Amino acid sequence: MTEINCDMGEGFGLYRMGDDDALMPLISVANVACGFHASDFNHMRHTVQLAGRHGVRVGAHPSLPDLQGFGRREMKIGREELANCIIYQIGALKGFLEAEGMRLNHIKPHGALYGMAAQQEHVAHAICDAADVFRVPLLGMVGTLHETVYQSRGHRLVSEFYADLDYGDDGYLVIVRSRGIVDPQRAADRSLRALAEGKVTSLGGQDIAVRPESICIHSDTPNAVEVARAVRDAIGPYLRAA
Amino acid sequence: MTEINCDMGEGFGLYRMGDDDALMPLISVANVACGFHASDFNHMRHTVQLAGRHGVRVGAHPSLPDLQGFGRREMKIGREELANCIIYQIGALKGFLEAEGMRLNHIKPHGALYGMAAQQEHVAHAICDAADVFRVPLLGMVGTLHETVYQSRGHRLVSEFYADLDYGDDGYLVIVRSRGIVDPQRAADRSLRALAEGKVTSLGGQDIAVRPESICIHSDTPNAVEVARAVRDAIGPYLRAA
Amino acid sequence: MTEINCDMGEGFGLYRMGDDDALMPLISVANVACGFHASDFNHMRHTVQLAGRHGVRVGAHPSLPDLQGFGRREMKIGREELANCIIYQIGALKGFLEAEGMRLNHIKPHGALYGMAAQQEHVAHAICDAADVFRVPLLGMVGTLHETVYQSRGHRLVSEFYADLDYGDDGYLVIVRSRGIVDPQRAADRSLRALAEGKVTSLGGQDIAVRPESICIHSDTPNAVEVARAVRDAIGPYLRAA
Amino acid sequence: MTEINCDMGEGFGLYRMGDDDALMPLISVANVACGFHASDFNHMRHTVQLAGRHGVRVGAHPSLPDLQGFGRREMKIGREELANCIIYQIGALKGFLEAEGMRLNHIKPHGALYGMAAQQEHVAHAICDAADVFRVPLLGMVGTLHETVYQSRGHRLVSEFYADLDYGDDGYLVIVRSRGIVDPQRAADRSLRALAEGKVTSLGGQDIAVRPESICIHSDTPNAVEVARAVRDAIGPYLRAA
Repeated sequence: MTEINCDMGEGFGLYRMGDDDALMPLISVANVACGFHASDFNHMRHTVQLAGRHGVRVGAHPSLPDLQGFGRREMKIGREELANCIIYQIGALKGFLEAEGMRLNHIKPHGALYGMAAQQEHVAHAICDAADVFRVPLLGMVGTLHETVYQSRGHRLVSEFYADLDYGDDGYLVIVRSRGIVDPQRAADRSLRALAEGKVTSLGGQDIAVRPESICIHSDTPNAVEVARAVRDAIGPYLRAA
Repeated sequence: MTEINCDMGEGFGLYRMGDDDALMPLISVANVACGFHASDFNHMRHTVQLAGRHGVRVGAHPSLPDLQGFGRREMKIGREELANCIIYQIGALKGFLEAEGMRLNHIKPHGALYGMAAQQEHVAHAICDAADVFRVPLLGMVGTLHETVYQSRGHRLVSEFYADLDYGDDGYLVIVRSRGIVDPQRAADRSLRALAEGKVTSLGGQDIAVRPESICIHSDTPNAVEVARAVRDAIGPYLRAA
Repeated sequence: MTEINCDMGEGFGLYRMGDDDALMPLISVANVACGFHASDFNHMRHTVQLAGRHGVRVGAHPSLPDLQGFGRREMKIGREELANCIIYQIGALKGFLEAEGMRLNHIKPHGALYGMAAQQEHVAHAICDAADVFRVPLLGMVGTLHETVYQSRGHRLVSEFYADLDYGDDGYLVIVRSRGIVDPQRAADRSLRALAEGKVTSLGGQDIAVRPESICIHSDTPNAVEVARAVRDAIGPYLRAA
Repeated sequence: MTEINCDMGEGFGLYRMGDDDALMPLISVANVACGFHASDFNHMRHTVQLAGRHGVRVGAHPSLPDLQGFGRREMKIGREELANCIIYQIGALKGFLEAEGMRLNHIKPHGALYGMAAQQEHVAHAICDAADVFRVPLLGMVGTLHETVYQSRGHRLVSEFYADLDYGDDGYLVIVRSRGIVDPQRAADRSLRALAEGKVTSLGGQDIAVRPESICIHSDTPNAVEVARAVRDAIGPYLRAA
């Protein structure tokens, strides 16, 4: 069984990003921005309510403190300070969940923080320090340093498969700065194969082993809605009920 | 019975404000800044831990979003947006309380927000909207609009007495922009009389009725520690045990 | 003779607002956001360069410090502090102009600041305090308090006509929170009549006197590009050469 | 001949840092914070005016965008974006200089930016890109990568000597996170020897060659005023007239 996760609520003030209204009915869990790379108290309230109406579970999507850089710039930050930074954001989100009678489902670090947690031990530990407080699973990638650290700390890693990103021959994602159009059918086919066979074809044509416990679709892909719909239709039988 | 409340954790980054280390042992409840007029995730963590070590109960001290103005500039803001703004801050603080196994004790709006709640109905309602989520008492002033609104909404108002501010003949506080030295003995005497007789002498020499359920001492008064110590010594028998 | 002015560079980080690329060739002067209600150092650089390539003159579009509220929330702010706030923003913009060998053309206060300057004397004076430093004209509305103050301080007011907003019978603009589609032909006709006859028809059917020294088109109107093109085509003979 | 430079105007809102009033009469040039690691439009105005009254020349002290971290956290940032970031800050400062009829004297990158410029080529180039706009000298350290880059770009490096920091045997500064008391006499003696002999004794007892064109005293050293006074008294004959 799997689920579809999507970053949600990434507008700010008058700015909009992603078509949350169209995506929310298509996904299982929402990673909700907490105001540090995107979002603000109004967008968070709205996004949590929107998720609630669609029976979508809500996780926190905390970031480095970097609104202008959308949380995509790495910065040097110590473990304690980073743990505090993450606790603050998750706590804020829980306020809105509490307002709607909902519960926190998971934590998925955003952007540079996600990547840093895959390579810097103190970052992965800081995320665990925060997860110790809230006791929910962490979305992440198998085969990375963060998997090792999360498990050594007793936290459950929900393994992500990226429907709309290419994998290199080394099993790592090929990150692009600005997202272009994604072929919905190809994303659907890849997702289905990942679920059925536990494999994805790398850019170099290799079969890479994957464990798609949660399938990520990026809301800032220009045609994210079609991608989500195609993936959802294709993997229906594998989808965990909300 | 009464308690001593004090604004705590109002530093930011490398900046310090108030001698929290010296004040914390002298007070009953701490109003902890939530990052919108002062504080950040590091100061909040530290302040909550400090309070915990001293058995001091922790309330949220939310503000308008105005770090550079220290939350002292009034702004036009709608009820819904303001409620969201307050929920975000209290939620963030609760994250740190959860980390320490502590509970939220109360809400005390900060600065301009406190004053606006005494005069603008939609502001008082926005505070209640947030208090509906967290279900804790609100610190405030009797005889103001916010008392009326809080009570009509079923929220308990804990009535504050200001040990270190003067009262006008109309019963309102005389607000000064920058706090000067306060005579500790005078603050102690005023507090004791407020508790014993329910009265304070106004600047014009009138007796004003007060209800000192919680005695506020400002941490940014230059000699706040001496004031707190004098008040605490004087009102000992009236102090509720932590 | 007249000109077309338009707010430009109002994105922030990854966020976009308005189609600056399509609008810039159609306008005479750009009011460039300075980072306090919108924009950041990257958007400012890009916008100034874009204006330069199209021979569009650049003015500063300073705001109250309120990124999350897009500068549309009034706040209480003293004259001196406000003047400092404006000088900071204009200075920052001049840095980018200096980088391109361009000059500051004018100042147009943004959003709530524009409105406050029409009603609060100390706000209009603060704007003049900043204009004293940079010695360029101020865009504004005739018949308002700011016209009186600007002129008493010796600053030239460039009188704006709003092609895409309705006027009330009192001569004031009818402000809407969220901009809808504007009929390009109507905007063009109104602009032409304003130039030819100095008159506009109010919502109530009255003829209101106007002085269209600069015609404002809002870049956040959904069809701003068509509106700008229609107005530009209609008023061609009246347009001052860049 | 030499000069004394000092970081100034590093307060923010109600927060204070350093005793600028006492230090300003003792120094030759002020590195004025521009709002990105410290300061705001009010502090900048005040600091520029204070410098002006004491005949102190003013340079810009731009930083990475990191108010909460006081600009001491390294972050990954590209050359173009960083150049824009620096131009914005210097431009803002120039606004206040223009208001007082003063000129920009130099640029001294702050904190992590200063250190990054000593090691990352694209950072040193970004600083030059900004310096190309304003055409003033750059304060820095000889023997570093930034010296090489600045000179290759045709910018003058004013070589700093640090009166209040220890040098390692490798000639690099020993950076401490939180500054403690500095022995004023030792700082004065070291400064004098640096000027007279071009040497300083490292922590390991080695003689290190230095070129003290500008002597830096940190305003956040607890006894910075005494240090500045002792250094100034000692090096009097070497001080360039303001």
